[in-house]
Amino acid sequence: MKHLLSIGDLTRADVERLLETARSLDGPEPLPVLRGKLVLNVFYESSTRTSSSFELAAKRLSASTLTIKSSGSSADKGESLKDTVLTLAAYEPDVIVIRHPQIGAPAFVARHTAAHVVNAGDGKHQHPTQALLDLYAMRKALGGLEGLHVAIVGDVLHSRVARSLVQALGLVSAHTTLIAPPALLPRGIEALGCETTTELDAIGAADVVYVLRMQRERMLAGASYVPSLREYTARWGITPERLRPGQKVMHPGPLNRGVEIDARVADGPDSLVLEQVRAGLVVRMAVLHDLVAAGAAAARLGAVA
Amino acid sequence: MKHLLSIGDLTRADVERLLETARSLDGPEPLPVLRGKLVLNVFYESSTRTSSSFELAAKRLSASTLTIKSSGSSADKGESLKDTVLTLAAYEPDVIVIRHPQIGAPAFVARHTAAHVVNAGDGKHQHPTQALLDLYAMRKALGGLEGLHVAIVGDVLHSRVARSLVQALGLVSAHTTLIAPPALLPRGIEALGCETTTELDAIGAADVVYVLRMQRERMLAGASYVPSLREYTARWGITPERLRPGQKVMHPGPLNRGVEIDARVADGPDSLVLEQVRAGLVVRMAVLHDLVAAGAAAARLGAVA
Amino acid sequence: MKHLLSIGDLTRADVERLLETARSLDGPEPLPVLRGKLVLNVFYESSTRTSSSFELAAKRLSASTLTIKSSGSSADKGESLKDTVLTLAAYEPDVIVIRHPQIGAPAFVARHTAAHVVNAGDGKHQHPTQALLDLYAMRKALGGLEGLHVAIVGDVLHSRVARSLVQALGLVSAHTTLIAPPALLPRGIEALGCETTTELDAIGAADVVYVLRMQRERMLAGASYVPSLREYTARWGITPERLRPGQKVMHPGPLNRGVEIDARVADGPDSLVLEQVRAGLVVRMAVLHDLVAAGAAAARLGAVA
Repeated sequence: MKHLLSIGDLTRADVERLLETARSLDGPEPLPVLRGKLVLNVFYESSTRTSSSFELAAKRLSASTLTIKSSGSSADKGESLKDTVLTLAAYEPDVIVIRHPQIGAPAFVARHTAAHVVNAGDGKHQHPTQALLDLYAMRKALGGLEGLHVAIVGDVLHSRVARSLVQALGLVSAHTTLIAPPALLPRGIEALGCETTTELDAIGAADVVYVLRMQRERMLAGASYVPSLREYTARWGITPERLRPGQKVMHPGPLNRGVEIDARVADGPDSLVLEQVRAGLVVRMAVLHDLVAAGAAAARLGAVA
Repeated sequence: MKHLLSIGDLTRADVERLLETARSLDGPEPLPVLRGKLVLNVFYESSTRTSSSFELAAKRLSASTLTIKSSGSSADKGESLKDTVLTLAAYEPDVIVIRHPQIGAPAFVARHTAAHVVNAGDGKHQHPTQALLDLYAMRKALGGLEGLHVAIVGDVLHSRVARSLVQALGLVSAHTTLIAPPALLPRGIEALGCETTTELDAIGAADVVYVLRMQRERMLAGASYVPSLREYTARWGITPERLRPGQKVMHPGPLNRGVEIDARVADGPDSLVLEQVRAGLVVRMAVLHDLVAAGAAAARLGAVA
Repeated sequence: MKHLLSIGDLTRADVERLLETARSLDGPEPLPVLRGKLVLNVFYESSTRTSSSFELAAKRLSASTLTIKSSGSSADKGESLKDTVLTLAAYEPDVIVIRHPQIGAPAFVARHTAAHVVNAGDGKHQHPTQALLDLYAMRKALGGLEGLHVAIVGDVLHSRVARSLVQALGLVSAHTTLIAPPALLPRGIEALGCETTTELDAIGAADVVYVLRMQRERMLAGASYVPSLREYTARWGITPERLRPGQKVMHPGPLNRGVEIDARVADGPDSLVLEQVRAGLVVRMAVLHDLVAAGAAAARLGAVA
């Protein structure tokens, strides 16, 4: 594995190796495995959680880190991305972690640098480390992934998390049902390997209810995908009454408590929200370790192109 | 000591131990005492001085640091604070340093995480490390604290620094007089253990004149606490003419030169302003060291709940 | 060398020593030479490239770093600069790297602290590490500097890069011609040791064509120095057609592709743009090393004032 750009590039064996590596790194001690390596974290969209998680993961592996944040200008994105990439490449980093509003930006970076590239979110497209950490948290809570049934509920339309997670669940032979109001359920998304429905009752069959963040900023700016947030909450909000006892609940964060998820659910005994945050750290450590160690091993074999 | 949330939680022995620890750490060499420990600096109000001072203190003790800054949104502060805390806790930091506009936010964090928590300023409430560094700078300049007379002058109303410092001076048996225009002197503040007056002449009896920052932004936005900044300066500004030779002058920074403090005073031989900045570094090192080392020692005795 | 404030303070021997030191540091391995030293990066103007380059350079030398960014307020710049400096000095850093909109701010810092000071750009005045990295990239690409002919093209009026580079090229006995539209060519700039012309054809005689960034923000805000960007591009933009084969092209970045420089030139085989970024890292490592090591050596000889 040279890069982590999309769940679509991974095999089942890749996923299992990454989850296993994460498990082995799940301890309190910093590790020296990336000492002397440089990890650049480049965030062209505002992010606190994901950027902190990657920065901390790199530091826990003793890497040197440099975080570059930019709101980015809307003009000339294509051009400036090219120059940004070339500038970053000149620093000769071992890994570039990049979040960018433009779909395909991480792949572009990968084509133009010698570094390992990790996609930390590109537009509505992919957010592969989120999907991997979700698998990690599910496996830890439920013991296994094969045959698991996951219902993903909410604003599927704008969600790179949903896209990545459906693919990842498919790889490990779990089943996914996407549940959303009609306007938030993109046509043809079944092609990723999932069922879809507009009936919230379908969550009843799921082992895990994965609640998507209602992206309010998009609601207000764009067309009215739902009549109102209040009505959305009334019809689609995940409350204790709508869940079976023992059904696990997940959410990628940050939570809109009282909108797509009731606070009693978020803080309840079946919530995996905190396990997801913790999983984010170890899974990102595993990804960094896997990319750099695999590259180093390949280099020792003279196999690097 | 598990946390440092308020001077009100400390005993005299705590203060003396912290000042003594600070003295022992006052040297140019980095120390390895927090190697492998993680200190999160979380600032929900803009800050350059305090956040830099904490970051540097943690680095001087060889801790790993992660600084998270957020302007924060005014909406849903209560809810988002909870999720922020839980997210931070999931990283399993050893210490969380937090500044937040909401009074009690650091205490809330302390209740919901296993980390040691340091209050770096919560609303108008407390800023305990500022008070400790002020004691440190006073003791260094004047040889001792007991029986010292400190006059705190200016915008007491909006000042968490004044509240913390009055309590800290009380603990070490120093006397405090708060001096301010009537509109900036909160009723009942004598209960903290100090005298109050609206006569600036009262500074004459003080060993140390502690000048508070005139918080212009609050002046402009809110009611007119003082007729005008110019009039404030004329009646309350600390000039060389208003001081006795040898009276020490302090200010928590950043200074409004020419407003609450004359530049000749700020740069004069009796100014302790720079000693305060330097004290900030060693006192914050002492606090971090004390919290983590005490926790570690208690853990070795099997006494941690 | 105690500080690096302006190319005007350097001798030819200084420049040659710095370039030679940079060459010796040009490798992938981090070096321990600044271990235990503190480098403060203080940026009062927005910067991603230069601040990243300095931060990375310091880290590659194993220094401890603290980066302070502030948009700064326009009011009371003089006063607040003084207090900023005193605050920074209280941390007892070994090096302060500072970018500030005010001409002379780095020199002011140097007068008021014991730290080594590096000017990372002060208003329209100087940007000495940019000039040194440009020399480094030229020497690497062309084998030597003496007798080289460099044409600097574009918005000379607003460019601290042009001012620094003309002086640096003069020190190493290279020739410079400044080429710009009349309104962007400041009167009397020949005094720095260069020729000037408003004829773009003059680039034909140059070994290196150094293209300055068109500072659009200044164009829009200020007087109309050029009729329009489009017309500027038509008359002054550097296209493949306007270059001789083998003429090297440089640009300090960030590039306005399609404005002052054609994308085919920027990405072409004679472009040194990436070599400049890479040179920035090693030259800044060399500057930090030279300042601190020279200071340490002098201290050992008891020669420090």
